[in-house]
Amino acid sequence: MAAAYSPSHALRLSKVEKWDGETDVIVVGFGVSGACAAIEARQAGAAVTIFEVASASGGSSALSGGEFYLGGGTWVQKENGFEDDAEQVREYLTMSGGPGVDRERVNLYAANTVSHFQWLQDQGIPFKGTYLGGKQIEPMTDDTLIWSGSEAAFPFTTVAKPAPRGHAAQMMGMGAGKLVMEKLTEKALSLGVEAHFSTRVLALIADDDNAVHGIVVRIDGEPKMYRAKKGVVLCAGGFICNEEMLKRFAPEAMDVFANPTTGGNDDGSGIRMGMSVGGAVTHMAEFFATKPSFPPDNLVKGIFVNERGQRFINEDSYHGRVTKYIMRQPNGKAWLLMDNAIFERPLFRPNVEIAAVGETWAELEAELGIAEGELQHTVEAYNRYAEAGSDPIQHKDAKWMQPLTEAPFAALSYCAEDYPATGFTLGGLVTTTSGEVLDAQGAAIGGLYAAGRTACGLPRWGEGYSSGMSLGDSSFYGRQAGIAVAKAAAR
Amino acid sequence: MAAAYSPSHALRLSKVEKWDGETDVIVVGFGVSGACAAIEARQAGAAVTIFEVASASGGSSALSGGEFYLGGGTWVQKENGFEDDAEQVREYLTMSGGPGVDRERVNLYAANTVSHFQWLQDQGIPFKGTYLGGKQIEPMTDDTLIWSGSEAAFPFTTVAKPAPRGHAAQMMGMGAGKLVMEKLTEKALSLGVEAHFSTRVLALIADDDNAVHGIVVRIDGEPKMYRAKKGVVLCAGGFICNEEMLKRFAPEAMDVFANPTTGGNDDGSGIRMGMSVGGAVTHMAEFFATKPSFPPDNLVKGIFVNERGQRFINEDSYHGRVTKYIMRQPNGKAWLLMDNAIFERPLFRPNVEIAAVGETWAELEAELGIAEGELQHTVEAYNRYAEAGSDPIQHKDAKWMQPLTEAPFAALSYCAEDYPATGFTLGGLVTTTSGEVLDAQGAAIGGLYAAGRTACGLPRWGEGYSSGMSLGDSSFYGRQAGIAVAKAAAR
Repeated sequence: MAAAYSPSHALRLSKVEKWDGETDVIVVGFGVSGACAAIEARQAGAAVTIFEVASASGGSSALSGGEFYLGGGTWVQKENGFEDDAEQVREYLTMSGGPGVDRERVNLYAANTVSHFQWLQDQGIPFKGTYLGGKQIEPMTDDTLIWSGSEAAFPFTTVAKPAPRGHAAQMMGMGAGKLVMEKLTEKALSLGVEAHFSTRVLALIADDDNAVHGIVVRIDGEPKMYRAKKGVVLCAGGFICNEEMLKRFAPEAMDVFANPTTGGNDDGSGIRMGMSVGGAVTHMAEFFATKPSFPPDNLVKGIFVNERGQRFINEDSYHGRVTKYIMRQPNGKAWLLMDNAIFERPLFRPNVEIAAVGETWAELEAELGIAEGELQHTVEAYNRYAEAGSDPIQHKDAKWMQPLTEAPFAALSYCAEDYPATGFTLGGLVTTTSGEVLDAQGAAIGGLYAAGRTACGLPRWGEGYSSGMSLGDSSFYGRQAGIAVAKAAAR
Repeated sequence: MAAAYSPSHALRLSKVEKWDGETDVIVVGFGVSGACAAIEARQAGAAVTIFEVASASGGSSALSGGEFYLGGGTWVQKENGFEDDAEQVREYLTMSGGPGVDRERVNLYAANTVSHFQWLQDQGIPFKGTYLGGKQIEPMTDDTLIWSGSEAAFPFTTVAKPAPRGHAAQMMGMGAGKLVMEKLTEKALSLGVEAHFSTRVLALIADDDNAVHGIVVRIDGEPKMYRAKKGVVLCAGGFICNEEMLKRFAPEAMDVFANPTTGGNDDGSGIRMGMSVGGAVTHMAEFFATKPSFPPDNLVKGIFVNERGQRFINEDSYHGRVTKYIMRQPNGKAWLLMDNAIFERPLFRPNVEIAAVGETWAELEAELGIAEGELQHTVEAYNRYAEAGSDPIQHKDAKWMQPLTEAPFAALSYCAEDYPATGFTLGGLVTTTSGEVLDAQGAAIGGLYAAGRTACGLPRWGEGYSSGMSLGDSSFYGRQAGIAVAKAAAR
């Protein structure tokens, strides 16, 4: 009776009467982390079986922009004249990780980012090698290199020398994650990885010590016992699709639940399976969110204010960082102020609500219901900073500053009710850099690994996120999990 | 070998060769939640054994102010002329719970707060019944009723009619938690609750389905197997003393690690034991923190600004809420600005750092390194609001506003480096209102209950905390767990 199984409830090994199948390594989920784990484990000689709940590989990765956060002096960076090194990557990612940064994970990643880029190409993922300037979300061309984070923005500029690090796969238009997943899938299958689609993993199978020996998986409607002699790698995504889990673990992410960034199967089952054998979770309340404030570039020259008329962020920050700041303003209210000289509409929100228009800032202030004098003061001070080319309040780069003096003036609404954000969860299982799932004490759980958004990885702080961090982390740490599980002794 | 046991690793029931002891209900920890659970379970007829790691009862509760967050029209509120009802308590606590509020828990608590107050008195805890006005942290007299939260402050005033709800036990001076724990201990022991001190619970004992049947406890250096026929109630406190857990689960709480609010045994072992059998945890990154901004009352008439010269909170909010806002300002910098008319030093920080003094606000601004004009604008606007008796920016109550115009002016430092906060963790196991520990799927784990800071209770959002919420929640939900476990069928 399939209904008796639950991801939150491991089946005891002693209850397994016979195995319906066995392999060395079971990978749960065929997104980017699962694909990379499978490739590495297979190349190390292990027999590998992937179970994917969807009818094809891809997961949420296939819906992404196909961008990897890489640097440290890749050939693309060099060819386009950008200097970078592992230390700069490390410092940037350390700040990006926030107060709970996993330094060990950051350090290993930063030290290996050039070779990881090579590995991705070796799997058949094409990168054109060209650079696309400006403030982008992802290339709408087939270019490779973009500024995909807050590298050139305060406070990140205080710890690391800026360099563009978003490396997108070569595909014309948005959504190159599809191509990434096609290539990785091809590679995994060509190596002899066995893949089952439309199969739902129902529960882990664990011994008395919670060491994992296999899974219960529903195949053609029937629960099957599948043994993993070396281990199970959970690569089943995050939990942005699971309303109950969001409410419980990431209540603020409910703001993006109606508009999630997902392939549709981020139901948290991987995380719940890990927890069922004592796996610890961390940063569960953290999530990435965005309602892109750019492109076009001109929007970055505007200023964001809250309902108190205060600025609250340097507007040249990464759009996801700007969004996290917007979301925490009183009553979720924020407006982007523009003058006539720079006025444009957001590319991804052409029908953006114009909350107020006026011939003077005083008019706008009144229309927005901001206390008298507050907005006027903010604009007056900003214009002074723009003239001087230095922003002592929010430290916006002078490149994006010009006085907002040409009437009419407008306020674009980024308020919660007018412009919903999209996003995904960042919390997940605690793992070592080899992907071993840890309990709350820090001890590894036998036979259990996790990667991608099932684990809490490099991206673990919404306001520190940069595009490409999730795909970069998932591919690299998927690989590490695959390497580690292949080395484990068969049981 | 005791070293083989770990709170993160349940011992399988099948490994227990013989029981060294047995009882109906085992309570882990003898603070307020453990005491209340034990009293209720015992009164319902169950045999109850408490294991406490310290050499006496008390836990962190004994170090508290002995304040319970209660209302809804207690006799003390009535005698002192304050109107209140269950609905107001419910609305206030709902907002206090933040984005992840547990409405069911709030509703049950709000509906029963008057009868719970009676119950506390029935256990022998004395309440004088008198009211102490002003902005207090806890009574330094033996009075009962104080304003112990943000009831009279925005935005709480928009959802609930203000009433004072901090009910402190009658003891002259601070720290009436000691008296609370003396009375509850006496009561529990008089009922025949068996208590073992200086005993460390090492691990849970669970069957193949993770249902809990007992504990491994170190008594006189030896691990003993102790059976609980009805269940185990984890009342072992939070994890503010556990550096590893803080770093992993509540990285921002590391700011108070050196100066924790604890009896010394909040090592997270209760939470880890719950996790070892698949118990889900939530709000792990949340914590209470304070560096009290008052008393005396005069300080509330000052204004807080950050390094940008912006105000960021209505200063008449609860001191713990003010502190959470201070901690998230850029670089942890915040100053309380006073003029000569109101100048005083914080009672609990008489040696507070005076960061700047000047004859004009412009002087102070320069001395604090704030961008020219920003502090002056903020004070000018505030003084205007104070004259008008209305604060459209932060919604401070007019009662606490007067123009800051009498030189000299001073800035008291509440910066992180000058004035460290103290605090404790709010995250913990997910439980029902009956204290049953739930897995990530929302299913109850057999034989396992939790209360107090081992569970995630009413207080689960640092900026919504009010004094007395933890003791109120721990005592009330400790009781519910005791009632529920006593009703469970013996196994």
